[in-house]
Amino acid sequence: MSTSKPSIPKGTRDFGPLQSAKRSYIIDVIKRNFVKYGFRQIETPAMEQLSVLTGKYGDEGDQLLFKILNSGDYLKKTSPQDYEKGSQHFLGLVSEKGLRYDLTVPFARFVVQNQHDITFPFKRFQIQPVWRADRPQKGRYREFYQCDADVVGSDSLWNEVELSLLIHDVYKELSYDGFVLKINHRDLLNQMARYVGLEGKEMPFCITIDKLDKIGTEKVSEELVSMGCDKAKLDGVLALFQQSATNSEKMALIKKLTGESRGTRELEEYFKYLTQNGGDQLKVELDLSLARGLTYYTGIIFEVKSTDVQIGSITGGGRYDNLTGVFGLEGISGVGISFGLDRIYDVLEERNLFPAALTKSVDILIAHLDQESFEHGIDLLHALRGSGVAAEIYPDVVKIKKQFNYADKNSIPYVLVIGAEEMAKKRYSLKNMVAGNQEMFTLQELQEYFKAKI
Amino acid sequence: MSTSKPSIPKGTRDFGPLQSAKRSYIIDVIKRNFVKYGFRQIETPAMEQLSVLTGKYGDEGDQLLFKILNSGDYLKKTSPQDYEKGSQHFLGLVSEKGLRYDLTVPFARFVVQNQHDITFPFKRFQIQPVWRADRPQKGRYREFYQCDADVVGSDSLWNEVELSLLIHDVYKELSYDGFVLKINHRDLLNQMARYVGLEGKEMPFCITIDKLDKIGTEKVSEELVSMGCDKAKLDGVLALFQQSATNSEKMALIKKLTGESRGTRELEEYFKYLTQNGGDQLKVELDLSLARGLTYYTGIIFEVKSTDVQIGSITGGGRYDNLTGVFGLEGISGVGISFGLDRIYDVLEERNLFPAALTKSVDILIAHLDQESFEHGIDLLHALRGSGVAAEIYPDVVKIKKQFNYADKNSIPYVLVIGAEEMAKKRYSLKNMVAGNQEMFTLQELQEYFKAKI
Repeated sequence: MSTSKPSIPKGTRDFGPLQSAKRSYIIDVIKRNFVKYGFRQIETPAMEQLSVLTGKYGDEGDQLLFKILNSGDYLKKTSPQDYEKGSQHFLGLVSEKGLRYDLTVPFARFVVQNQHDITFPFKRFQIQPVWRADRPQKGRYREFYQCDADVVGSDSLWNEVELSLLIHDVYKELSYDGFVLKINHRDLLNQMARYVGLEGKEMPFCITIDKLDKIGTEKVSEELVSMGCDKAKLDGVLALFQQSATNSEKMALIKKLTGESRGTRELEEYFKYLTQNGGDQLKVELDLSLARGLTYYTGIIFEVKSTDVQIGSITGGGRYDNLTGVFGLEGISGVGISFGLDRIYDVLEERNLFPAALTKSVDILIAHLDQESFEHGIDLLHALRGSGVAAEIYPDVVKIKKQFNYADKNSIPYVLVIGAEEMAKKRYSLKNMVAGNQEMFTLQELQEYFKAKI
Repeated sequence: MSTSKPSIPKGTRDFGPLQSAKRSYIIDVIKRNFVKYGFRQIETPAMEQLSVLTGKYGDEGDQLLFKILNSGDYLKKTSPQDYEKGSQHFLGLVSEKGLRYDLTVPFARFVVQNQHDITFPFKRFQIQPVWRADRPQKGRYREFYQCDADVVGSDSLWNEVELSLLIHDVYKELSYDGFVLKINHRDLLNQMARYVGLEGKEMPFCITIDKLDKIGTEKVSEELVSMGCDKAKLDGVLALFQQSATNSEKMALIKKLTGESRGTRELEEYFKYLTQNGGDQLKVELDLSLARGLTYYTGIIFEVKSTDVQIGSITGGGRYDNLTGVFGLEGISGVGISFGLDRIYDVLEERNLFPAALTKSVDILIAHLDQESFEHGIDLLHALRGSGVAAEIYPDVVKIKKQFNYADKNSIPYVLVIGAEEMAKKRYSLKNMVAGNQEMFTLQELQEYFKAKI
């Protein structure tokens, strides 16, 4: 047995009581809103077959999958020749399972597997950890939660509007207003690619445009020109990105540039429904340069950015036309969003938006001076709990200072002290740990005092 | 890309909306009670260093750990000679991490790592999945949740009483009363082992006694006699197990047999505190044959058994005197319990105790006959939501029957239907999906009707 100081794997984290309470707070808000909008929870296993995961996230993604060794004598299917062939070949013989990399592929697998039991449109949400063998760095972890909601089996743009409203409701309930919901349409990016002469290179165009924030307009322009695009037309497109115009002005500009298209029609319908839902009070901004890296998006795409905290996107999503095709079920269109728990946590922390007393558990700690007052305290505890007060008694007979320290560290707002005099008079001193003052109460007065508080 | 029908690893499960809602219900009840009793949540990573996990669960446990392949070229530290040495040697070179096997060892690791930041007594709870490469069978899974609460750094028997009260509160809130909380003390088992002449063989005695339910008195007796125990004295002990006596009668019997001991003293103190807390209304039963398999228990042990559903223990726990010693921190005593989510689920299912409408998300589905009524519906939806009603609109313009089917499958209790006449009159028909009746409402009447319901 090792007695060296234990540690956790790099890129993973422990969450103590305060962090855990803050995380639960965010998750509860997101979950409550998912339910309010009619989404239903599913859970999938942490482990998936490697055949399900491999090939869905590109070559780089395959490298980042955590693979699980087969149970028992995992070498039994291998030979020295297999060993000589190297890691990649050997992998197929020693590992059949991996940890899920995101919630989207397991969801697609779930839909295909349960297609005959599902009523479409299927609005599901899923809040679970995912694992990626990324190089750990600030803000990037090897285990992190995703909070996803998707509607599959409905082509209606109303779903995009619902998700936009849901995003607003989540941030409103988190008391965070320093965000903007950026929106664009993949088809418009394709139109722009063709307009600048990059027909057939729409995807590389998107990927380059996606780097605008990171490498700037000039470098993006250089890259696209080197792909063979028309510089003058490109300048027209890039100018569009810098417009601080209204959404409808931008719509007019893009229509002038690339004409009517699936993209313009769908965005117009989206904005029409949005307007019916108090759209002028919503923080939705058409951003014609928004591209999002993932290849599977085909329609409207979203991204929520913080305007007051330096951080990447805090929520993202979009429409995909063929999520389940990879598992043999064609024609299921869907649209989804994913909330990034860790980044939202960082934003609320930096903006100091977490509610106070998230870690408060009980209202009263009963403190005592000796075994006799401890046993007296047990009776009081039983009576207080009986009248609905959340209370605990310090379990050991120790110095009163240690008991007060316990209350302090655990954010318990009141401490009741019992000693010989208190027992004799049946009046107990209640200390308010926040205000610092002290008052005497009988048991009945205590019960009434806290009943009024609850 | 594979197009074969995808599947999940054996021994793992998907949870659809209904199962997920039922699981959430149980978890929420347990969590709420943990918080009420002053426990604070922590979370630890799914992956732990293999050096943390290995050697903590016996040889069999080591075999059941899921091991994770090192990232990148995982073979790079190996040679053909290493390969020839076989799976066990090779493992040390290709895998450093494993999935957690329970929540107790990660908790011990957490306490040791954070010992200088923790205020003792530390009451923590943790609700997370664990993974075991067990042979899958009915009721035994490779991924399952544990819901653990532990107090460490306090020797007081009050903690054992608190945990007993907590167990009662959880099952009360789950409306389940078909259980008994069995209690015993490890020291009494040791005393009995010595009494029957098995001094030095206390642990094997416990392990054999633990099999009483499975193999019966006769076989247990044979096994113990073959270990060299005194048959006549053993018969005296075994007779004790079959007593349908009260707890205090049993206390008197065991004291007569083995005298006063740590075990009898601690149980007497436990029952004294329990009595102060309405102990006669609690379902606590001293069961002198209760042994529990785990070797690390040293004091009072618990087990909750169902009396009306054929299933193993649904909650278990006990006191351990040296949880963190294995990581070099001595002298931290603790006591904890673990609720088994899957078994509680099965019990509530069999007893039909899940509340109705757990999967209900919204109150109203707005149904429509064409694009015009759909758009009219969006305005109604916005108004209803504005007055606090949880509602959704069917997103696509499809046959009304399909929309009703959607409401039905998703347990939406009301469907509002909009057609040309409804739009003209601004009166809408609301169908109660449970009662089957239909009524006409204006928007304002709807808002008032649902406001009264909420």
